[in-house]
Amino acid sequence: MQIAMIQDKIVTAKELEPVYFDRGMFFGDGVYEVMRSYDGRIFALEEHLQRFAGSMSAIKISGVDIDLIRSRILRAFDAAGIANAKIYFHITRGSQPRDRVWNATLKPNFFLTVSELAENTEEKTKGIKVSTHPDWRWKRCDIKSLNLLANVLASNDATRKGCGEAILVNEDGLITEGAGSAFFAVRGQTLQTAPLTANILPSITRDFAIKAGRNNGLEVIEKSLTVELAAGSDELLIASTTQDTIPVVRIDGKVIGDGKPGKYTKLITQEFLSFTV
Amino acid sequence: MQIAMIQDKIVTAKELEPVYFDRGMFFGDGVYEVMRSYDGRIFALEEHLQRFAGSMSAIKISGVDIDLIRSRILRAFDAAGIANAKIYFHITRGSQPRDRVWNATLKPNFFLTVSELAENTEEKTKGIKVSTHPDWRWKRCDIKSLNLLANVLASNDATRKGCGEAILVNEDGLITEGAGSAFFAVRGQTLQTAPLTANILPSITRDFAIKAGRNNGLEVIEKSLTVELAAGSDELLIASTTQDTIPVVRIDGKVIGDGKPGKYTKLITQEFLSFTV
Repeated sequence: MQIAMIQDKIVTAKELEPVYFDRGMFFGDGVYEVMRSYDGRIFALEEHLQRFAGSMSAIKISGVDIDLIRSRILRAFDAAGIANAKIYFHITRGSQPRDRVWNATLKPNFFLTVSELAENTEEKTKGIKVSTHPDWRWKRCDIKSLNLLANVLASNDATRKGCGEAILVNEDGLITEGAGSAFFAVRGQTLQTAPLTANILPSITRDFAIKAGRNNGLEVIEKSLTVELAAGSDELLIASTTQDTIPVVRIDGKVIGDGKPGKYTKLITQEFLSFTV
Repeated sequence: MQIAMIQDKIVTAKELEPVYFDRGMFFGDGVYEVMRSYDGRIFALEEHLQRFAGSMSAIKISGVDIDLIRSRILRAFDAAGIANAKIYFHITRGSQPRDRVWNATLKPNFFLTVSELAENTEEKTKGIKVSTHPDWRWKRCDIKSLNLLANVLASNDATRKGCGEAILVNEDGLITEGAGSAFFAVRGQTLQTAPLTANILPSITRDFAIKAGRNNGLEVIEKSLTVELAAGSDELLIASTTQDTIPVVRIDGKVIGDGKPGKYTKLITQEFLSFTV
């Protein structure tokens, strides 16, 4: 008889709901997205759905209809009735007794939450401090997978240091991105960020931040920065779905500019928000 | 109201069991072990418990008593009544609404299964074919974490090619280990395997295989192999908890030796099994 144990309780395996045998739990064998709404409208829904389809394809989860995913998202968002909502969802390959080799007939598991977005007025107006951490992530960060322990450890290191985000640095001493954000430096009339060829996520917010920078006359340079170059920049900012753009006023304790959110960062934020209306 | 959705069904978040908010699912924020029993006796229980404690410490899961874990394992093993059993267990950091930053008061979640070990007589007597795959894993493979998507993708690539294991190759063209095993080459009077300084798991079975090799007069060399060197070896073998040692007779289609399990591999297997009695 196959048995299982949850905390101190012994049960037979067949008594358990499939979620206990989810490959998402055993292996992080799944992909996810986070979207947000502004005042009752989901922002960049199609871009997120397209990236999600790409992530599923990259890890060979097939047979999931994107139109069905879209309709689930809209139905749940409607049911929640939250104007400024965070929408999280993942698909895992399915549930089966633990085996790295997947069963070809598995039915993927879908899970979604809709919750109130946290306020970030203080971060937006005062800016945040960030700290650096080695980039321990896997080598396929172009896939938005559930393998996020490296991000978790980096984020908690930042929190422990009183910082609002961890900036990941690879073995060559180059900044890839934040643990949950894209990373930008304003240097003169340029907006610099790592190229998508580096091991980073094709961030949707990154695209909009780049567009906002260009609309404000900045030349965009896609080239990785060292921590030293970043620390010597005129302005730093991060961009993420849930927070859009946030000024960075210190990195590893070093003050950026005059220690206040920079001029271009404010312009980029303003421009970004105009996209969401 | 925070709502959730499972497949097509909308529920309120508070209706859901904590397992749906397990950080193991959202982030792979947990560590695991696999043990086996031989004829009613768990093999290397203390070694596995010690490594598990090390994994928990490395990702800062604290407050879990190893004596309690040991007693749970023994109780579940006893309840299952399986002589040749596979025992899998993991601890995750706990359940909370999704946030990379963990809540300091979380209670870790423990999950364990005991199941019948799959027969591997054919693999042991005839040997297996293996194929190579890029090593996409994270940079802390010394931690036995639930972030295993790279291993899953490599294993399934091997299966698709009719092979029994994927051998992971890093950016420098060096073999690290198998997707679920340690990798060894017999070359003359030597037994060669990657050093633990490479990004690999401190495998317990690896230690016993090394001891078995030494007991058979082989000099152990801890130095990474290229695929070409591996393919030109006298013998190849893999070692894992559930399968102990398995001869490898082909790598990427290239026949090793005379295409049959080698002399030293057989001796190592025999010696290994003597440790388990």
